[in-house]
Amino acid sequence: MQTSDEVRNALDIVFKANSQFYATRGFQRRIGYGKKPALLIIDLANAWTREGNAFTCDNMDEIIPANQKLLEAFRRRGLPIVYTTTAYDVTDRSTPGDMGLWHYKIPVEVLKVGSEAAAIDSRVAPREGEHVIVKKRASAFHGTYLSGMLKTMGVDTVIVTGVTAAACVRNSIEDAIADGFRPIAVREGIGDRIAGAVEWNLFDIDAKFGDVESLADVLAYLDSNDLDV
Amino acid sequence: MQTSDEVRNALDIVFKANSQFYATRGFQRRIGYGKKPALLIIDLANAWTREGNAFTCDNMDEIIPANQKLLEAFRRRGLPIVYTTTAYDVTDRSTPGDMGLWHYKIPVEVLKVGSEAAAIDSRVAPREGEHVIVKKRASAFHGTYLSGMLKTMGVDTVIVTGVTAAACVRNSIEDAIADGFRPIAVREGIGDRIAGAVEWNLFDIDAKFGDVESLADVLAYLDSNDLDV
Amino acid sequence: MQTSDEVRNALDIVFKANSQFYATRGFQRRIGYGKKPALLIIDLANAWTREGNAFTCDNMDEIIPANQKLLEAFRRRGLPIVYTTTAYDVTDRSTPGDMGLWHYKIPVEVLKVGSEAAAIDSRVAPREGEHVIVKKRASAFHGTYLSGMLKTMGVDTVIVTGVTAAACVRNSIEDAIADGFRPIAVREGIGDRIAGAVEWNLFDIDAKFGDVESLADVLAYLDSNDLDV
Amino acid sequence: MQTSDEVRNALDIVFKANSQFYATRGFQRRIGYGKKPALLIIDLANAWTREGNAFTCDNMDEIIPANQKLLEAFRRRGLPIVYTTTAYDVTDRSTPGDMGLWHYKIPVEVLKVGSEAAAIDSRVAPREGEHVIVKKRASAFHGTYLSGMLKTMGVDTVIVTGVTAAACVRNSIEDAIADGFRPIAVREGIGDRIAGAVEWNLFDIDAKFGDVESLADVLAYLDSNDLDV
Repeated sequence: MQTSDEVRNALDIVFKANSQFYATRGFQRRIGYGKKPALLIIDLANAWTREGNAFTCDNMDEIIPANQKLLEAFRRRGLPIVYTTTAYDVTDRSTPGDMGLWHYKIPVEVLKVGSEAAAIDSRVAPREGEHVIVKKRASAFHGTYLSGMLKTMGVDTVIVTGVTAAACVRNSIEDAIADGFRPIAVREGIGDRIAGAVEWNLFDIDAKFGDVESLADVLAYLDSNDLDV
Repeated sequence: MQTSDEVRNALDIVFKANSQFYATRGFQRRIGYGKKPALLIIDLANAWTREGNAFTCDNMDEIIPANQKLLEAFRRRGLPIVYTTTAYDVTDRSTPGDMGLWHYKIPVEVLKVGSEAAAIDSRVAPREGEHVIVKKRASAFHGTYLSGMLKTMGVDTVIVTGVTAAACVRNSIEDAIADGFRPIAVREGIGDRIAGAVEWNLFDIDAKFGDVESLADVLAYLDSNDLDV
Repeated sequence: MQTSDEVRNALDIVFKANSQFYATRGFQRRIGYGKKPALLIIDLANAWTREGNAFTCDNMDEIIPANQKLLEAFRRRGLPIVYTTTAYDVTDRSTPGDMGLWHYKIPVEVLKVGSEAAAIDSRVAPREGEHVIVKKRASAFHGTYLSGMLKTMGVDTVIVTGVTAAACVRNSIEDAIADGFRPIAVREGIGDRIAGAVEWNLFDIDAKFGDVESLADVLAYLDSNDLDV
Repeated sequence: MQTSDEVRNALDIVFKANSQFYATRGFQRRIGYGKKPALLIIDLANAWTREGNAFTCDNMDEIIPANQKLLEAFRRRGLPIVYTTTAYDVTDRSTPGDMGLWHYKIPVEVLKVGSEAAAIDSRVAPREGEHVIVKKRASAFHGTYLSGMLKTMGVDTVIVTGVTAAACVRNSIEDAIADGFRPIAVREGIGDRIAGAVEWNLFDIDAKFGDVESLADVLAYLDSNDLDV
């Protein structure tokens, strides 16, 4: 479900008015980049990036290349890279297990641990020493060791990409700032599967939880001397 | 910033198309009510409910009465009630402390622990034996004892109201289902301060994290024999 | 390092005096069994249960049969079974990663994800539908989805066994009661590798965090009508 | 219940043998001091430090002065100070609430929020800008905002004191290293109320979770140029 120009224009008018209002209230501040970023790629696994799955998302022609460019920059600078996927050991909906209650809202029963659907897309494949966290919930932080690991790595900033804007990306960013990491959402690297969701979730994120920046801006930061590497 | 009819109509068209799409994908399922609900009232403190604060929200003429009706029903049935407020011990932005990084995005420095601004609005005042959690982040669950307390109480469902739809209400609902509680968002009891935010956040919540129900529906449930009290 | 009779006797004298003192203070209460137990088997993987590893523990001739009996009873009643193991993706100590800071205290670098050392001992092998959580820290709850999963399963009691008493077993029990589950430590099912550690840790657990019960007592409970199955 | 010389000697023999054994296994490593410590004082509130409470601990003649010296050093260097106390809003054992299940093991019902018993001992009173966290469980990290706050402060090391060795101090240290902070337990600043508990818990902590150091050693570190202040 691509967002039509008509919807995008309608939303842009609302966002503009909201931003003017927020300027008077002191919201929508800039958190800025820190000294040591990690790349956090949310759920760019085949169930989300390839056709034919309940979780299939749009716009991979832009999202995959954007993530490839970020991976190249992080690897060149020797900075930490963490991927997530979402998958379950028990996918029988009649047996309570690691799906928790989530299958009562969305079809997580199609995401089996170890399946091709749950594997990271080969176009952005992880390399030796990079981390793949199999999460069970929307947030990359909830019920995982991510926060403690990033702390140990000395990370102060998370550059966040992936899908979906309305669920796993947003919730990971909410938890990132709550745990003390500066979240930067990369506009071209984030997608969803319904119209408008990228737009309104990036608006809310930028207003309250992290900075939404362009790929070019993030790549310039990764090339700069602002990093502590 | 009230949502204009024009914006609401534009959003409704998008939501309808998205819902049709989600029906084909198996999202937007009903999680339903459980047997033992708790009422979770997010940030109906004066900073949000009264005029003149950076955090002031809209539509209190509807939100306060809706919450009063819910409080009455929960008290009548002897069911648990938990309020949150958000407030900080150290509100000097140059001193790192319990505001964490959040003051880099929103003006949390106006929310002092023990202030009138941080006190629950007297129109929905807590009574003896009801819980008020002073949280530091958006989610009522993050960095608080809420989850363990609800578990001890035997709660399986959280009826969620308050403000704001785009931050504390939504993030609390995301964490509620992640921790194993059925979240029910009460449409008339939830607000925000910018145009469209209630609409698009309730849409995302209903699609993925909890059921959005009318006040009448929730009150009928609270009057029913479906409860384990 | 078996605990000598001399040490055990010395400790028993201290424990007896402490228990008399705690009786006057109101500690060492009984938490009791609930209605729906899960079996939580901590780190009965080869690194701990077999000879020749830095993590090798004592007394497997008693611990393995005790756990086999518990597994049999849980499977017979159709109750949830969760195993943990501890293993890491990055075991190079010079690269910060999922070992966090723990390798600065103990030799976790010998525990590689997917290795035979990290696999559950075949004598207590998990079956289809039983859960194996790969944890990174001492507690089975810290940085894992265990708490939310147990909540979803309706579990109110965790029967805890495995190794070591001084670290992963104890810390899991501390977190279990903190999250709202009644912890029961099974005396014959728990071990360690240093003298005295089982004794003093079970003493502390029984005084403050959970009930220490005999295998016979737990098996009788599992055979009883007290369960909600 | 002071630890008698006889018990201490018996334990010392066991500890020595265990340490020799652990040296062959690669446990009991040194984690060392980092660059930015916070002082974490656990439950030096009147219920623990003064006579006549179920929670009253021993050895305050040594513990209070040790903590005063640490406070002086931390204040002089402008380093973060965090206190905890443990207290509850609902202390009626028949009403499930913020005590969770803990009252089934220990008499937490005597610890009321806002009471004199729950207030920090005036001999180590907090000053403006220092943090007092009211926790509900043993660990200072569980269900609190401590971890995210320390992360925001740039803290990499927690100097831990207070009571009790067997519960809140130990569990806080276990969580500290799990979350990525170097724990240092100050021998003279830590107490308990039963014989042997300080000894065996500090032994376990030093073996697996954090370094146990003398007050003199910690004060020398705080006076050194090793700090990043």
